[in-house]
Amino acid sequence: MKLATLKNGTPDGRLHVISRDLTTAAPARAATTMQAALDAWDTVVTDLTAQYDSLNRNAEKEAIAFDQAEALSPLPRAWQWLDGSAFESHGDLMDIVFGMNKKEKLTKPLMYQGVSDRFYAPTQDVPFRSIEDGIDFEGEFGVIVSSTPMGTSVNEASKFIRLIVQINDWSLRKLAPVEMKTGFGWIQAKPPCSMAPVAVTPDELGSAWRDARVDLPLNVHWNGNKFGAANGYHMAFGFDDLVAHAAYSRDLVPGTIIGSGTVSNANYREIGSSCIAERRGIEMLDLGEPKTAFMAFGDTVKMDVFLPDGTPVFGAIDQKVVKAG
Amino acid sequence: MKLATLKNGTPDGRLHVISRDLTTAAPARAATTMQAALDAWDTVVTDLTAQYDSLNRNAEKEAIAFDQAEALSPLPRAWQWLDGSAFESHGDLMDIVFGMNKKEKLTKPLMYQGVSDRFYAPTQDVPFRSIEDGIDFEGEFGVIVSSTPMGTSVNEASKFIRLIVQINDWSLRKLAPVEMKTGFGWIQAKPPCSMAPVAVTPDELGSAWRDARVDLPLNVHWNGNKFGAANGYHMAFGFDDLVAHAAYSRDLVPGTIIGSGTVSNANYREIGSSCIAERRGIEMLDLGEPKTAFMAFGDTVKMDVFLPDGTPVFGAIDQKVVKAG
Repeated sequence: MKLATLKNGTPDGRLHVISRDLTTAAPARAATTMQAALDAWDTVVTDLTAQYDSLNRNAEKEAIAFDQAEALSPLPRAWQWLDGSAFESHGDLMDIVFGMNKKEKLTKPLMYQGVSDRFYAPTQDVPFRSIEDGIDFEGEFGVIVSSTPMGTSVNEASKFIRLIVQINDWSLRKLAPVEMKTGFGWIQAKPPCSMAPVAVTPDELGSAWRDARVDLPLNVHWNGNKFGAANGYHMAFGFDDLVAHAAYSRDLVPGTIIGSGTVSNANYREIGSSCIAERRGIEMLDLGEPKTAFMAFGDTVKMDVFLPDGTPVFGAIDQKVVKAG
Repeated sequence: MKLATLKNGTPDGRLHVISRDLTTAAPARAATTMQAALDAWDTVVTDLTAQYDSLNRNAEKEAIAFDQAEALSPLPRAWQWLDGSAFESHGDLMDIVFGMNKKEKLTKPLMYQGVSDRFYAPTQDVPFRSIEDGIDFEGEFGVIVSSTPMGTSVNEASKFIRLIVQINDWSLRKLAPVEMKTGFGWIQAKPPCSMAPVAVTPDELGSAWRDARVDLPLNVHWNGNKFGAANGYHMAFGFDDLVAHAAYSRDLVPGTIIGSGTVSNANYREIGSSCIAERRGIEMLDLGEPKTAFMAFGDTVKMDVFLPDGTPVFGAIDQKVVKAG
């Protein structure tokens, strides 16, 4: 099943069922918002799925053309957003960029708590105050869980994963190492994220949902130029590990979103990267210094994902960086 | 004005106006929930204040006795919770406890993003999985802001502070240094917080609201024994600094809560502490090793604050630690 939230003038928007090929949409009958659907998932999932099947058969009377520019993030605001850093090749490069000492092999996932009171819409301009802060994108996958009890084990965790999403975790690279060195994590370096328009149930990925990981390339274009297509499978910890880690000492409410961290593969020289900081890290390794500047006002970033047969999965994040006014 | 949220079977409860002496309550007419009041503060504040004045004059027809055991946290869940660490004497001791190197004098506030999807009710039992995790309380003050734009300066920040609250920031001390060393901040070491029943507008503190700080002692009792009464004034950064720091790269939505960090004074040997970890730090300094164990199941903690004339301010956090089950 595929779901999106379309603008209706309210912060939470209006939940829609989206056809598998992302061409049509219909207002969900079983729930008016994504949060309401997640709060009552077991009650509404049968009706939502039936409506989705009907839409795919062109049998849905209320169907309209799906315009991704009318979409908010699938969950426009959430009670909790926790972001992992599960790709080791990304973490290793970040250590170089930030001048951190190489850490021992991690036995627990890395995770920080991020701002969740808004996720920018997938095609909206994103405001920043200064390019001096080092504006960067971070392409990620994420999962949205239903109610997950404190103490949930890794083995149990997957069953609470309801939806998969695609995220751009906006980052300010000049501020990040300063905050990281405090040990307190990031506030100023991590403004709100963006999400691609469509959230999908794991079955929509078919065999590409594997070991609680997304075995698909994340295509990243910066100013129209291909920047990377790293595969989401290469997580040192799967989303099951991340959910269990998050739930160690807290219940997770429905709609908690948990991110993978920047998608990265060890063959980054061939496959490219999902953030500029990683490319700069490669340049530091190969050339002795970073050559690629961070984003400028007016720059665009586009991120999308396709199944091997060409079916679009989440729609596209397609955004422009603008000066906050 | 004083406000509290009473239980009504919903997550957000029912907003009530509370008399200055905390003896009576009346359902707020201008807004049904605290979040709704904060979302429309400028529209509702006159009516709420008039109702508060009426309640204090015993002229409120719907007045009932105020039972603190019926209160949820004033904001039972929030879109954002950011916690500072603004008391230097606390930070210095924590560096000793965590084996951190002494940092240079800070030029920016320390702040982390915490879980905000629930704040435990002020008198509810608080569940933890294991005493091996090092269960500790942290007595704090906090502010709740209305809509605060990205880029708000320190000079402008105070005008967005709508309410002051009293917080217990539950912490798991065995997990905290492990997470802190990652630089990502705390997830497992910081389960949900609790709040005292009553949120107050700054004018309720009179001259004790000074330089965007709470110039009052925070009384802490552990298992009925006095543990500390540190004064809230001694912040290296005031709440105006903390709000401006938080708003550097993000708009703050109404209902964003910003905490002071553990209230601590340099004369902690005389005045006591607001968390066990600080007492253990003092013992490490004075005795060479910590002597005081962290909390056990069945332990209680009580925290309250009074004006110099004896008027209770926020009501009491009065909780018991229990095994999650």
